[in-house]
Amino acid sequence: MAVADWLAALDRRAALRAKAGLTRRLHPRAAGDDVVDLAGNDYLGLATHPEVVAAAARALSAYGLGATGSRLVRGSTDAHHALEDALAGWLGTDRALVFSSGYLANVGAVRALVRPRTLLVSDAHNHASLIDGCRVSGAETVVTPHADVTAVAAALAAAPGRPAVVVTESVFSVDGDLAPLARLHATAREHGALLLVDDAHALGVTGPAGAGAVAAAGLAGEPDVVLTATLSKALGGAGGVVAGPAEFVRHLVETARTFIYDTALPPAVAAGVHAAVGLARTRDDLRADLSRRAALAVRRLRAAGLDVSTPDAAVVSVTAPGPEAATGWAAACRDRAVAVGCFRPPSTPDSRSRLRLTISAGVSQAEFERALEVIVECAP
Amino acid sequence: MAVADWLAALDRRAALRAKAGLTRRLHPRAAGDDVVDLAGNDYLGLATHPEVVAAAARALSAYGLGATGSRLVRGSTDAHHALEDALAGWLGTDRALVFSSGYLANVGAVRALVRPRTLLVSDAHNHASLIDGCRVSGAETVVTPHADVTAVAAALAAAPGRPAVVVTESVFSVDGDLAPLARLHATAREHGALLLVDDAHALGVTGPAGAGAVAAAGLAGEPDVVLTATLSKALGGAGGVVAGPAEFVRHLVETARTFIYDTALPPAVAAGVHAAVGLARTRDDLRADLSRRAALAVRRLRAAGLDVSTPDAAVVSVTAPGPEAATGWAAACRDRAVAVGCFRPPSTPDSRSRLRLTISAGVSQAEFERALEVIVECAP
Ligand SMILES: Cc1ncc(COP(=O)(O)O)c(C=O)c1O
Ligand SMILES: Cc1ncc(COP(=O)(O)O)c(C=O)c1O
Repeated sequence: MAVADWLAALDRRAALRAKAGLTRRLHPRAAGDDVVDLAGNDYLGLATHPEVVAAAARALSAYGLGATGSRLVRGSTDAHHALEDALAGWLGTDRALVFSSGYLANVGAVRALVRPRTLLVSDAHNHASLIDGCRVSGAETVVTPHADVTAVAAALAAAPGRPAVVVTESVFSVDGDLAPLARLHATAREHGALLLVDDAHALGVTGPAGAGAVAAAGLAGEPDVVLTATLSKALGGAGGVVAGPAEFVRHLVETARTFIYDTALPPAVAAGVHAAVGLARTRDDLRADLSRRAALAVRRLRAAGLDVSTPDAAVVSVTAPGPEAATGWAAACRDRAVAVGCFRPPSTPDSRSRLRLTISAGVSQAEFERALEVIVECAP
Repeated sequence: MAVADWLAALDRRAALRAKAGLTRRLHPRAAGDDVVDLAGNDYLGLATHPEVVAAAARALSAYGLGATGSRLVRGSTDAHHALEDALAGWLGTDRALVFSSGYLANVGAVRALVRPRTLLVSDAHNHASLIDGCRVSGAETVVTPHADVTAVAAALAAAPGRPAVVVTESVFSVDGDLAPLARLHATAREHGALLLVDDAHALGVTGPAGAGAVAAAGLAGEPDVVLTATLSKALGGAGGVVAGPAEFVRHLVETARTFIYDTALPPAVAAGVHAAVGLARTRDDLRADLSRRAALAVRRLRAAGLDVSTPDAAVVSVTAPGPEAATGWAAACRDRAVAVGCFRPPSTPDSRSRLRLTISAGVSQAEFERALEVIVECAP
């Protein structure tokens, strides 16, 4: 009876979502489908780069598939340590620590920054993993309006003498805008607070040698900055990283639950991502292409009368009239072999639905231009 | 100044841990090191099985390294869906959903089971990921003494009319003992509560065709049971799974933050794990070997006067006199090319330190017997 109630309640909630146009469905793709991908996060096309695939294949033969244990037990391989050294060198930090996902890296990093009485100051548009990190840390959390440095300063000023951490993304995942990192850092430092930046959508895409938005803002290696990122976007793989002062990384190794109680990233993935780091560092040409294409997308879509964000990296957001229109728009594009992201509440920080376009160097210029036409033609 | 304080505080905490013998250090391993592994979780030796590696290699060439997006955006491939069908068939559940790790599967599953006013009843020895799931759900959580069905019944009886979920591991990761699943289920059902079982250390190791402890207890497919597991132990890969009623899996797809806001498992890992499922189903011979070896380990180590748990699967726990003795013991074994797990507070549910031996069919019988002698000879 109680079980029947539970399943009926789940069905009722699904029906409510359907009615509001908020149903989510999985659409599995085949290998090598000929879809033009403006939805994935493989910004530099490295997921399928022959050197990345070859490095992963070599490590797969050498180590086998899984890491077979957590990092502190049997899961740390030479592949993980070499990747960590490469990441620290690239990002310009003391040390870097690899997690099995960006999600768990964020949860681990936020929690590890919390001391007794810590105040967390978290941007309203922050990613779910940062929000979960704040929640699970148990620390008091003030959510400040998006990209509002004055609000951050006020929150810090209201907690004098308490440890505090300002938590933000760099390039925000839904709208693609860049946080005011330099001003956030100056404000944090003025109040003796630390700054945690999730550089997920900037790593490989912006900054000197693609080292991301933290490096671009001149904050790489600052002792009061902790950087996190996923290895699954521009680096084409999977996993996450936390980079910062050696003392903090040691603290993570010894205390972070999402590091200690989690199986290590497969060694083959670590090796593939390591190869991707080497490639990403050198490809300023691809980064220049990405900005040119982002600008082109904005011009073309605005010319068609669409409401388009001003991208700071390779994420472009296009407003849809509503959730059902957004789903229909994305489905119409998919029918014409163009994949676009479709973001609806509660996955948007406001109540607006939109298409999210992510620009990838893995797509040819001709395909990219065709995809823009398809998006315009399918607009509701 | 504030930064210097922070780093100094981290240093002080590291010094305190060192003083208490609780320092944790990473020991990277090389590919194909000749260490006898009684520390990893590759119970059936499938991480390096040629068919598993070949399946992963094929998918790596076909799809590239990463999934390039979250499951609902570009991350779902045919490899993920085929794996999910295979897991549901094996586990005897309506449906199965793959997450990027067992950790995130647990966090997602616990949270998705929580409705308004839900009471969570969580075993005192539960894994960190289950605990984090309880915390982040925000639901009231009663922690009951380990494997204490009476305490679970009392907690449920004290919350009449409220939705409730009993949360437990099957084979507990530190001591290797099995939860009283059938009695927990009967108690849960009597009170109209649901049962969530993390079958991480049982999947592939116990149960009919290796389908785990939930299946062994006759609970596979029960509508009030949700099963979670990692794909990183007996299946030799990485990732996690939540299996249960179709309504619940749909609910996860549409609402679970750790599913929606996380990059999908690499397709090559999904394909390798799929091959591992096929192999694991058929290897009752290896499972029989594991029990024989577990029994041998207990006899040999007890004969040497050591305090050894009675294993219900392939995890054997050996008491150490203290944290430093445990570290020293494990290090002495490592010097003789035997890897054993070393568990100290706060990673043990009580204040005891121990060695944890995990038995793997990937180790030869001769190596296994030598390893037992090494453990005895290195005992403090
Ligand atoms: C800003 C941001 N942070 C963290 C994550 C999580 O990283 P991962 O997918 O590796 O778990 C993502 C996306 O997936 C993201 O967009
Ligand atoms: C009981 C249990 N649950 C969950 C997990 C987490 O799974 P994963 O390593 O895939 O994150 C583990 C071990 O890692 C475990 O032992």
